[in-house]
Amino acid sequence: MSISKPSDKDKVQYKVIGTRPIRHDGNDKVTGRALYGADYYPTGLIYGKVLRSPHAHANIRSVDISKAERFPGVFSIVTGTDLPDAGDDDGLRYSRNNILAADKALYKGHAIAAVAAINQHVAEEAASLIAVDYEVLEPVLTVKQATSPAAPLLHPNLVTEELGEKTSTKSNVANHYRHELGDVKAGFRGADYIVEREFNTETVHQGYIEPHNSTAFWSSDGKLNIWCSTQGAFNLRDGVADILDIKPSEIKVTPLEIGGGFGGKIPFYLDPLTALLSRKANRPVKIVMTRKEVFESTGPTSGSQIRVKIGATKDGNLTAGQAHIAFEAGAFPGSPVEMASECIFAAYSIPNALIDAYDVVVNKPKAEPYRAPGSPNAAFGMEQVIDELAEMTNIDPIDFRLINASRKGTRRAAGPIFPEIGLVEVLTQMKNHPHYKTPISGKYRGRGVAVGYWFNIGCESSVVISVNSDGTISLVEGSTDIGGSRASIAMQAAEVLGIRSEDVNPSVVDTDSIGFTFLTGGSRTTYATGWAAYKAAEDVKEQMIARVAMIWEVDVSAVSFDSGIFTSMNSSNQSMSFKQLAGELPDTGGTIVGRGTVELGMGGNGGGSFAGNVVDVEVDPETGKTTIIRFTVFQDAGKAIHPSYVEGQMQGGSVQGIGWALNEEYFMAPSGSMDNSTLLDYRMPTALDLPMIETVIVEVPSESHPYGVRGVGEANIVPPMAAIANALKEAVGVRFERLPMKPPVIFEAIQEVS
Amino acid sequence: MSISKPSDKDKVQYKVIGTRPIRHDGNDKVTGRALYGADYYPTGLIYGKVLRSPHAHANIRSVDISKAERFPGVFSIVTGTDLPDAGDDDGLRYSRNNILAADKALYKGHAIAAVAAINQHVAEEAASLIAVDYEVLEPVLTVKQATSPAAPLLHPNLVTEELGEKTSTKSNVANHYRHELGDVKAGFRGADYIVEREFNTETVHQGYIEPHNSTAFWSSDGKLNIWCSTQGAFNLRDGVADILDIKPSEIKVTPLEIGGGFGGKIPFYLDPLTALLSRKANRPVKIVMTRKEVFESTGPTSGSQIRVKIGATKDGNLTAGQAHIAFEAGAFPGSPVEMASECIFAAYSIPNALIDAYDVVVNKPKAEPYRAPGSPNAAFGMEQVIDELAEMTNIDPIDFRLINASRKGTRRAAGPIFPEIGLVEVLTQMKNHPHYKTPISGKYRGRGVAVGYWFNIGCESSVVISVNSDGTISLVEGSTDIGGSRASIAMQAAEVLGIRSEDVNPSVVDTDSIGFTFLTGGSRTTYATGWAAYKAAEDVKEQMIARVAMIWEVDVSAVSFDSGIFTSMNSSNQSMSFKQLAGELPDTGGTIVGRGTVELGMGGNGGGSFAGNVVDVEVDPETGKTTIIRFTVFQDAGKAIHPSYVEGQMQGGSVQGIGWALNEEYFMAPSGSMDNSTLLDYRMPTALDLPMIETVIVEVPSESHPYGVRGVGEANIVPPMAAIANALKEAVGVRFERLPMKPPVIFEAIQEVS
Repeated sequence: MSISKPSDKDKVQYKVIGTRPIRHDGNDKVTGRALYGADYYPTGLIYGKVLRSPHAHANIRSVDISKAERFPGVFSIVTGTDLPDAGDDDGLRYSRNNILAADKALYKGHAIAAVAAINQHVAEEAASLIAVDYEVLEPVLTVKQATSPAAPLLHPNLVTEELGEKTSTKSNVANHYRHELGDVKAGFRGADYIVEREFNTETVHQGYIEPHNSTAFWSSDGKLNIWCSTQGAFNLRDGVADILDIKPSEIKVTPLEIGGGFGGKIPFYLDPLTALLSRKANRPVKIVMTRKEVFESTGPTSGSQIRVKIGATKDGNLTAGQAHIAFEAGAFPGSPVEMASECIFAAYSIPNALIDAYDVVVNKPKAEPYRAPGSPNAAFGMEQVIDELAEMTNIDPIDFRLINASRKGTRRAAGPIFPEIGLVEVLTQMKNHPHYKTPISGKYRGRGVAVGYWFNIGCESSVVISVNSDGTISLVEGSTDIGGSRASIAMQAAEVLGIRSEDVNPSVVDTDSIGFTFLTGGSRTTYATGWAAYKAAEDVKEQMIARVAMIWEVDVSAVSFDSGIFTSMNSSNQSMSFKQLAGELPDTGGTIVGRGTVELGMGGNGGGSFAGNVVDVEVDPETGKTTIIRFTVFQDAGKAIHPSYVEGQMQGGSVQGIGWALNEEYFMAPSGSMDNSTLLDYRMPTALDLPMIETVIVEVPSESHPYGVRGVGEANIVPPMAAIANALKEAVGVRFERLPMKPPVIFEAIQEVS
Repeated sequence: MSISKPSDKDKVQYKVIGTRPIRHDGNDKVTGRALYGADYYPTGLIYGKVLRSPHAHANIRSVDISKAERFPGVFSIVTGTDLPDAGDDDGLRYSRNNILAADKALYKGHAIAAVAAINQHVAEEAASLIAVDYEVLEPVLTVKQATSPAAPLLHPNLVTEELGEKTSTKSNVANHYRHELGDVKAGFRGADYIVEREFNTETVHQGYIEPHNSTAFWSSDGKLNIWCSTQGAFNLRDGVADILDIKPSEIKVTPLEIGGGFGGKIPFYLDPLTALLSRKANRPVKIVMTRKEVFESTGPTSGSQIRVKIGATKDGNLTAGQAHIAFEAGAFPGSPVEMASECIFAAYSIPNALIDAYDVVVNKPKAEPYRAPGSPNAAFGMEQVIDELAEMTNIDPIDFRLINASRKGTRRAAGPIFPEIGLVEVLTQMKNHPHYKTPISGKYRGRGVAVGYWFNIGCESSVVISVNSDGTISLVEGSTDIGGSRASIAMQAAEVLGIRSEDVNPSVVDTDSIGFTFLTGGSRTTYATGWAAYKAAEDVKEQMIARVAMIWEVDVSAVSFDSGIFTSMNSSNQSMSFKQLAGELPDTGGTIVGRGTVELGMGGNGGGSFAGNVVDVEVDPETGKTTIIRFTVFQDAGKAIHPSYVEGQMQGGSVQGIGWALNEEYFMAPSGSMDNSTLLDYRMPTALDLPMIETVIVEVPSESHPYGVRGVGEANIVPPMAAIANALKEAVGVRFERLPMKPPVIFEAIQEVS
């Protein structure tokens, strides 16, 4: 594992940042004591079960709960009619219908009703007594099916929004977005080589280990308490308020620890159900999903169909790019296709570009964010086409990318001009790495490279810091800690105050106990909440300097502070440590509390992060099984606050990418039923399937963050599918245009070429 | 119930302050859903039991835990040797020895050892297997016994501290304090009348309904978590850190709701035990006391012996006062006798005064604060002597008090010169009240009056406020809410921001989640934490004005804010409500968080609060039973933030005073055993024993608080014993010099005079 500082921009010497202290929540987590979403059992708790549609597409003629209501041990039942009417607000109606179906079931697993009962078994039995009269309809499961002229419509009144304008076309295409730059036709005319290919990817799931869960208690004074596993307690609070048509401040969300999210715990499914069941039952209600429910009813990411056409001159300069990207939205509009369109060409300076993106509803659970949503699908296509052009122009694939790489000032078809970014440095590190310099040889072996981009969103975060008299600080934040962000946020405060990371005591609290903090996602937490911690620490620092000035009877301007030591500029003998002053606060005016808030916009202004892979594969020709024999991931972290957790993100994203590349997919029966809804059959990679993932952290500081941080949570999942496809091309001579690149497909391809 | 504003100083018109909104925690509490100290059950919980001394005074020769250790189901055992050695620090050694006895048992119920086991029954059985070899010693139970020349010494090395200097006298008198003003001998020479009497009061208990409890988990990473019922989570945190010799920030205290404290939940008993048991067992440990343990081993207030000598001229001017006050400290030094000495003459301007106060150790549980600690005992004596002088000078007892009443500028023998205080206004209201104006007649009936004083301490508090986009605010505080302080603190923030009390969402959080906040006690919470809330709200206001200025593109000086509306001084049309702006915060720079901290010193500078009673009694001559037939309590609240909760405090203090006056006492056997350690035998008044307690809130604003608040939690318990004694004097013709004035005593007195 190495950290590379290709530029000398990062001359600041930090005391805490860049070190690897033990995370504050580590002990509780490794000893099994941390409390996760479902670990809260209030007095009087009852248990809920959701009745789900067995059909992927059906009209609901009626729902009869009378038998279930009479079943002994049942406390309350809710159906779609318990949710408020959304009126003309289509978006709100879709959201509510995804929580509880109204007149149509739109995917197998769609929630129809929920029952709360004395225990889970009674709830399950009672749910089975609810009589639903379905008129089963033909499902559409892919973009291709959904956009065929004869396709049944999921939403009879859904009209396509075409480049921002509502049309009158009733269709399964909810939206058509477009990005343009220059003159794409002229660009292709100027190309010596043009490659055009179509790629398809199957639906995959985020695959977090902890299933969705919710415990809610709606008190008779109107306060709704929710305990759950969520990536964003405030977003969940505001979202549930919308669904239930109540005020956000009437809800208190207590986020417990999270057993993985990867974007899939941004949406919520159960909380409005437990809330409504609780209000009717006047008791707290808990629902925990089964794994089958997680697969069938929650957040997969979109299957997609992508056509990429790129032109280049013979000396390797890109002249034009065109992309057609269609994403499965699942049962309701809102796939990440727009983000895919912003990412597909982000790594390259392409003077002429045209991108069309389509959001298409199909009879699958609604697509939800999954780590860099949309970008891996896009890169799977784009980075193979780039590789093919490199091959045609006879240029090393990394050199080819370096010729065209986006850098500060690059104008994009989709997105603002880049500020300082680290793609060139990532590619340079890839090129110079021993992995890339060591030749690979042997039959059925191959090496591939690819790069990928993801944003670094901003939004709002709040942090409050209190100084303890023993020289430590308590830091209160609202960001779900998925991958070590207690540490990475605490360390930024510690750096300001010249104390150790261990002297910071971070707490992730409920929505009543800290200011608004946007969700943990979009690679924003260490960036934005860390920045809020920096500001809160600066607020503390300023007040402490004022206190020192008061004690020494000097002007504040005469007090300097460096590395945890206050010194007087008037007298060389006068100095005081942070810890000493902390001990004197009670007697010199009382404790000090600092607050920091940031609003960094959805864009975040940091420029985002690029990742790259060098991957070596070996294929077993007798089975088509691919073994990853070496894998190195490079990523620009801006500034790695806690390198171990940056490396953890890089390794985790790589592993998920490998799974997506080689094995993971929803096996859908034509009826719309998922045939592999268990973790035995939905085959995620395990430690035994993988080599050590080597990491190289590249540090090109973000211009917009006090420490130069870039969010690192996502870009690392973008390149693996393409890098592995490029390696497989070398290993078996075939370019794979479909994910997953599973053994039978590779076996068949080998048969065809040999 | 009425509120009187005798002065016109309080001209400010408030929108929220002075109203009576429903308290934020009301619904949860009346529906039984609030979680109290013992209501936390972490996974893996085991249960502890304390082995207590059966002897009031004994040397401990040995403690053998070997049999108990082997008992099936036992996880861990701790004894005095598990606590760190205090070295030369006597105070620390006393504190530790009170948690677990070392070489001596100093009261019946003194903790000797504690056992943690799989359940409470196993723990109890195992505790009984611990073999303690006692050498039983003669106990001393009263000041008189303890100070007799032949008295056995509790602490062989305890030397009397005499007026601040250590002496070499080994004795049970730990401390002798003195306050002097003028020339007391000359003062008595100038008196026409002198009254001197001795008064004695028995030990009584605070009598909270919820017993002490503690659940602790000492994690293997060194973090100690404590869940408990406490009046001060931060004080408990720092106190336990001292006992265990660890850093305060290594402890996180989560205060659950409290079922009464009255000062008795300032000290802690169980938390170091559960902590040590948990560290040994590596599991969370809970201990809940029985009622018997609460009586025998926790915080009673001091029995006392008080001699008061007061001189007055025949026109009713006090010339001199002398007091000798000796308090039982219980087993370790530290009774509230010093506070009694500061209160005894506080109500009166006495030019020449001498007060001697003695802190005396006896074989009873260590005395702990009980509502206005020390002042009720003092007033029981002083206010009877004042009454007697009024009688002798033939002046109405209220007029007599008015002649001599302390007011702004009064110099005291003990304590600083008074700032603005409300005693004259309290007395005036008493005099003019229909109760006092309605004659009382009938045999065995009598009316008494008395007044009492208590401080209003300051110290540190912290509050953080976050603005929610729906126009509400979340308020985070660290003050245990005993009697409605969530409301009284929230209302002060609401007043600043021009929003409703209902728009504030207050949370009392753990010690990791807010800045240092001193305990709920000393009548400080509404005063000091309310002030911190005021400052946090001002911080929010200032930031919101800046935001409005940014939105309107005007200077901040052009934005005014009144009653929740921002208006532009440049344009009459430009205005925006708090709620509107709150909704726009996310899009105009993000949420706003405000912080407020105060350090108001132990004195608080507010001047404190005076209370007065007018009470009518009727005695049944055949049983000696006293019935309170009318009771009116008057108190200066400075400014009553939430009048209902002020009235609640006034009524509660009065009721406790009535119980103390007529019934409550520790029945001690000569062996030092308490014979009435149940709530059936320790007879606190119930609703059936009492008339409606009428209240008159007097409002003389404190000069030092932004809203003029005075703490009202305590002064109300001071006058009842004296007022009832004065009424009994009128009813039966006898002056009672001993508490309680219970039926047998009164019956006997009637026999003697008739």
